[in-house]
Amino acid sequence: MTKESRLFKTLGALTLSPIFSGMAIAFPPHFICSEKSTMEKAVIVKSSSAAAVSPSPSVPPVILTQDELKKIAAYKAIEYVESGMVLGLGTGSTAWFAVNRIGELLQQGKLKNIIGIPTSKKTEEQAISLGIPLSDLNEHPVLDLAIDGADEVDPHLNLVKGRGGSLLREKMVEGACRKFVVIVDESKLVDHLGGSGLAVPVEIVPFCWKFTADRLQSLFEYASCVAKLRTCGENGKPFVTDNANYIVDLYFKKDIGDLKVASDSILRLAGVIEHGMFLDMATTVIVAGKLGVTVKNK
Amino acid sequence: MTKESRLFKTLGALTLSPIFSGMAIAFPPHFICSEKSTMEKAVIVKSSSAAAVSPSPSVPPVILTQDELKKIAAYKAIEYVESGMVLGLGTGSTAWFAVNRIGELLQQGKLKNIIGIPTSKKTEEQAISLGIPLSDLNEHPVLDLAIDGADEVDPHLNLVKGRGGSLLREKMVEGACRKFVVIVDESKLVDHLGGSGLAVPVEIVPFCWKFTADRLQSLFEYASCVAKLRTCGENGKPFVTDNANYIVDLYFKKDIGDLKVASDSILRLAGVIEHGMFLDMATTVIVAGKLGVTVKNK
Repeated sequence: MTKESRLFKTLGALTLSPIFSGMAIAFPPHFICSEKSTMEKAVIVKSSSAAAVSPSPSVPPVILTQDELKKIAAYKAIEYVESGMVLGLGTGSTAWFAVNRIGELLQQGKLKNIIGIPTSKKTEEQAISLGIPLSDLNEHPVLDLAIDGADEVDPHLNLVKGRGGSLLREKMVEGACRKFVVIVDESKLVDHLGGSGLAVPVEIVPFCWKFTADRLQSLFEYASCVAKLRTCGENGKPFVTDNANYIVDLYFKKDIGDLKVASDSILRLAGVIEHGMFLDMATTVIVAGKLGVTVKNK
Repeated sequence: MTKESRLFKTLGALTLSPIFSGMAIAFPPHFICSEKSTMEKAVIVKSSSAAAVSPSPSVPPVILTQDELKKIAAYKAIEYVESGMVLGLGTGSTAWFAVNRIGELLQQGKLKNIIGIPTSKKTEEQAISLGIPLSDLNEHPVLDLAIDGADEVDPHLNLVKGRGGSLLREKMVEGACRKFVVIVDESKLVDHLGGSGLAVPVEIVPFCWKFTADRLQSLFEYASCVAKLRTCGENGKPFVTDNANYIVDLYFKKDIGDLKVASDSILRLAGVIEHGMFLDMATTVIVAGKLGVTVKNK
């Protein structure tokens, strides 16, 4: 028995929603959320009977991998999906689980009449392989729901996205949704955007990219910013986005301050197309952590 | 004798600067500027001796074409050029005259050590054909001067540019200049940007362009905006910029109001790369009109 199947089978499925009735997803009692959200309308996910129960001595402690946490967050997000929805399909390792699950539920007939709007060519390929009917923003300029991962989530549910390089299409699709559910493992939580020390990506035009990268770095000199062109492979060639542009990754040593001011400053630079800060866009963030799943609503 | 040569030869050359000493450019007395600029530091171009002189009865009245006015504005702008400068080379029918003149002066040895930064592939080709040494923004992130045309100029020297499709590179180059001299014929003067009824162009990513065009139109519903994808040729294919993007032209029936607010609103739309409003960028505007040349400084 694998660790995962042991995890799911030992404790039985939590009934998260009707469409989950046949799926083996569950959490051991010590995995039920204990972290209170800082958001006003925070919702704590728990099983009322299981929450108070101590781990059974017969169940060995389960240490979940980051991938398992991602999967748990993704499956939890599927609760928000209903038949007939137009759905934004995210990109990245966490969103992959959600898209896969949507495909499974369609195949099982537990979801019907879903139209997917993919946020990248990669997700488009995944969705096609799963038989998810697809369309685009031209045909469906308003979406019911999008589910996607994020690279950073701050306490106000602002996000950094785009380390996978799909930030532009993600922002177009997710900015057109009535609800935007973000799914992350707890390693993605930060005090302030840029706080992980990892990149805040900016999509730029290839023309004179060095000039634009230098201007971006100068813009955030006060935050000790270092701007680096994203490359791929051993030859050091620039990474090219689905839109045939480049990505400059911004690394901050200090807090960048007011995010809306920072956003406008970046967008005002000629040569910049879009940045990876998603401000006031997420309506729900689902965080899977070692102590449980937290659902934060805005 | 052509109309132009008559114009130039009859009245002799105005000594606009040392590098003009050998060129036949002049204005008939009635062509000397009479329009007072509204700008604080407006400079009226006039020949102190000629300004007070009535047209000679022996000189037939000269009616200048729009192209001749463009050429007069362009040649006037060359006054600002000095040997050793790094120069932004504009794009379009008016800038063409300026680039051509720079090439001539280099060939004549009256200008030396010029480095040109072209604002489009078309201008790059023109400059190469003229033997103007070229570089780019990566090598020269700060330029001494740029000379370019504009589609509209408002009383505060804000511009609309990009009807030729080169707005992005123009904005990158001209935003990096110490001085930006704009050259127009008087038909380009408007009370407010968009006021000519012609397009305010926006460069957008091709991905779901219709969605982005619709959002742009919605953004300016209060100004009765109509957004149209720019096409080319008879087959109606989208016009493609030097950066492989599309252009959406915005037509306004009413004043769009605060330009900085409008600018930020456009730039915040994911899918938009850049727009053709050049706000607070021009340092000098040279206007050639039937009554003379006006130089407006900011």
